[in-house]
Amino acid sequence: MQKTAAILAIGDELLSGRTRDANMHYLAGWLTERGVELKEARVVGDDSDDIGAALNALRGKYDYVFTSGGIGPTHDDITVDAIAAALGVSVIEHPRAAAMIRHYYSKRDIEVTPARLRMARTPEGAHLIENPVSGAPGVRIENIFVMAGVPRIFQAMLNAIEGEIERGAVIHARAATAPNLPESMLADQLREIQGALKGVSLGSYPIDGDEKGVTVVARSMDEAVATSAIEAVCAAMRALGVDPRLEDRR
Amino acid sequence: MQKTAAILAIGDELLSGRTRDANMHYLAGWLTERGVELKEARVVGDDSDDIGAALNALRGKYDYVFTSGGIGPTHDDITVDAIAAALGVSVIEHPRAAAMIRHYYSKRDIEVTPARLRMARTPEGAHLIENPVSGAPGVRIENIFVMAGVPRIFQAMLNAIEGEIERGAVIHARAATAPNLPESMLADQLREIQGALKGVSLGSYPIDGDEKGVTVVARSMDEAVATSAIEAVCAAMRALGVDPRLEDRR
Repeated sequence: MQKTAAILAIGDELLSGRTRDANMHYLAGWLTERGVELKEARVVGDDSDDIGAALNALRGKYDYVFTSGGIGPTHDDITVDAIAAALGVSVIEHPRAAAMIRHYYSKRDIEVTPARLRMARTPEGAHLIENPVSGAPGVRIENIFVMAGVPRIFQAMLNAIEGEIERGAVIHARAATAPNLPESMLADQLREIQGALKGVSLGSYPIDGDEKGVTVVARSMDEAVATSAIEAVCAAMRALGVDPRLEDRR
Repeated sequence: MQKTAAILAIGDELLSGRTRDANMHYLAGWLTERGVELKEARVVGDDSDDIGAALNALRGKYDYVFTSGGIGPTHDDITVDAIAAALGVSVIEHPRAAAMIRHYYSKRDIEVTPARLRMARTPEGAHLIENPVSGAPGVRIENIFVMAGVPRIFQAMLNAIEGEIERGAVIHARAATAPNLPESMLADQLREIQGALKGVSLGSYPIDGDEKGVTVVARSMDEAVATSAIEAVCAAMRALGVDPRLEDRR
């Protein structure tokens, strides 16, 4: 049985158009490679009630919830407080987090200010997630991983929790691209192949770049089924006079 | 009073890591320029229940809901059916949509297949959203705008609904960047400026590219307040020995 997951990205800057979120897409690929199914993503602003409502909706529904953003040293970093409030626990200064932050800055001859120590605050009962990039740790509490918004730190924190994620069967994916073929030309054939084969999911994605055309992806827990499905798709593409390009990809 | 909005991006490919969503970020900027506040974004897969649950949560909460994805001609395009089910209305073949699709393909000497006509199906009571790129229209029903997932078509459909969105007061934003300054050095000063000025929201965003540093954005409905806030931020940056770079941006 595959585990399920959701991500909650937090930050006004994501909703104002200032910043384009990168963590959702990275996490999606990372989880897929580990056989964990990302089922839902949400983005909310720096608002404690909005964060809490989204978190409470997601944490009961999925095996893992990842948050990104709002755990830095400034006044607009409210994720830890919002999560503690949503869980009904208090916020403490985590002794080991404080030690990690003191160690990180002292080693670099930088003063350990109260603002920096703010990053040692965690919901009571939390475990820490190592941050090799910039010292201040992330936090795990229950099934929630509270991580940084800066993509390089988010990714480093994912590495750090590798062992805490239960891997599942990886879905086998095969893709075939038909250059210059409008996807509507293939619609009937795809519906038929989808109906005839069990345990496969066919996705059809129009390409709208310099090259036009369509990519069809067959996904299955059974590698042989994914392969037969994509072979049937390729045959349908060839029958329409195009030469499909094959790829192994999600 | 600013109107509020949410986006619901739909597609397995967004959650598998195959495709990086681009519409959320584009819409965020587009709405901000029009004085509409994007409050929440969600991504769900091609699952009728998941689409319906998210849609029903969002449409009662915000003035406008935009969906992207799942309105093409293939079997995995289920957005129209899922939305009709969520609203408790039936799906019809919309006569004008069918005419638009027939016209688009006939003009190009392409056959109008049943798969292509599938794109004329709408929830009963819907209005159409013109699609100058590829013929098949989007759909508006109640406060929901049902749009394509392909970014170029999504953007063209936004142009087409320009007149249906009630503009609000545009938020004034001023940004100051301090190269090579860790944001924790500014945390106390930002908290103080935020506390002293009314009607302004200060955001602090660490930069993690080739250049390090921090960008602070002051947002306010009152241009003069945004300007005073950013001037105070710049003074604090200068007091730390850095020369800030100013920008007008969200």
